[in-house]
Amino acid sequence: MNQTLELMLSHRSIRKFTDQLVDAHHLDSIIRAAQAASTSSFLQAYSIIDVKDQVVRTQLKKLCGDQEYVEKAPVFLVFCGDMHRIKTVCDATYESGWTEAFIIATVDAALAGQNAMLAAESLGLGGVYIGGIRNHPQEVSQRLKLPEEVYPLFGMCLGYPDQEPEIKQRLPKPIVYHVDYYSEMDEATLEAYDTKISDYYAKRTKGKIRDTWSESVNKKFSQEKREHMLKFLQDRGFIKK
Amino acid sequence: MNQTLELMLSHRSIRKFTDQLVDAHHLDSIIRAAQAASTSSFLQAYSIIDVKDQVVRTQLKKLCGDQEYVEKAPVFLVFCGDMHRIKTVCDATYESGWTEAFIIATVDAALAGQNAMLAAESLGLGGVYIGGIRNHPQEVSQRLKLPEEVYPLFGMCLGYPDQEPEIKQRLPKPIVYHVDYYSEMDEATLEAYDTKISDYYAKRTKGKIRDTWSESVNKKFSQEKREHMLKFLQDRGFIKK
Repeated sequence: MNQTLELMLSHRSIRKFTDQLVDAHHLDSIIRAAQAASTSSFLQAYSIIDVKDQVVRTQLKKLCGDQEYVEKAPVFLVFCGDMHRIKTVCDATYESGWTEAFIIATVDAALAGQNAMLAAESLGLGGVYIGGIRNHPQEVSQRLKLPEEVYPLFGMCLGYPDQEPEIKQRLPKPIVYHVDYYSEMDEATLEAYDTKISDYYAKRTKGKIRDTWSESVNKKFSQEKREHMLKFLQDRGFIKK
Repeated sequence: MNQTLELMLSHRSIRKFTDQLVDAHHLDSIIRAAQAASTSSFLQAYSIIDVKDQVVRTQLKKLCGDQEYVEKAPVFLVFCGDMHRIKTVCDATYESGWTEAFIIATVDAALAGQNAMLAAESLGLGGVYIGGIRNHPQEVSQRLKLPEEVYPLFGMCLGYPDQEPEIKQRLPKPIVYHVDYYSEMDEATLEAYDTKISDYYAKRTKGKIRDTWSESVNKKFSQEKREHMLKFLQDRGFIKK
């Protein structure tokens, strides 16, 4: 197995970091790697905001569900879908609001994000995606001075790991991977996986949490629907048609 | 520089492949790498369809804008946003149609996709994303028997490269990367980049195409708005609120 595969297969989110700062040339490599990702029709429809200002960090921490690593991680990047740049370049011909443009911007930002995460990991750093940036996207957009047609998709904390969490086992391959056409998942396979994840949580929390995967999914969906997203995105100029 | 960074920085899309088949254990590594990517709240809200059936491949080629590599690439994967599995697991409590769920599924599929692409490249393969899968998403969904709340986000052709395209230079870092808050791009920086890209196209097409980046972006947006996307996604159970 090569280094890249090993890196990917050993991925786990890091939420606790040492005080060691991230060198500027390492951060530069991470951004260059992000930019090297594939991009739909070469549009490069995303922007990355590197939030260094500690006052803004503290505000963002509160807006992102009080996750203290948003404030304390050595690096905090916000990946944004960005059609504003395209619109500027296209001058009068650009038509705002197509859902396809939203998909392009979202995918471009996500591909860049995943390259950034792997680049960081290849340099000995660790990190975690912060979906909580969408808890209060309007306020986040104001703090980061995002123009219309730019929206915060996820944050990313990066730094040197100060924890060694276990790798979280993914769904069995046959549930995610289908040959030729979509097939419904096998119940016994799901049950076995549910048990595995329950054991994982029990071990990690010393018995306090014993959720199966199915239970954890249920909890997530009762808590975090972010019901404001459609209106927020439409106000920003996305998904209007 | 490490192997992973080198790999990312040398990425270019491959659209021409040798006849060499992709070994099953390599494909397995690619899928495992895809699954190892980060996933929002551990939802794993995506599915991968590996289209081997040559009849379906030929149909998909036509539906994806007649790109012959869709038919001929040794491997063709379709990455789908998948809330159907979550809905099944959540039983009666799941509420369909939240835009946030669409974002989660789209990002999860994209992160998995980028890991798959890098895993493939680390094994000596090359590939290209196929956004054209969204040209006729309803017909594609029928061919792949996708249930409601599953939608095709992009395809991916993989195989051993039979071409050696030049790396396409990305936007200058200051245009994409912002410190603390969003800043408008500098016109002179954009102009210099436009010239660079025009030279790149001229070289690649032996003078036939000389588009600047700004011109190529303009062309893309007059051609491919995929105006059907919102209705299609709503029919599938997404972005209804």
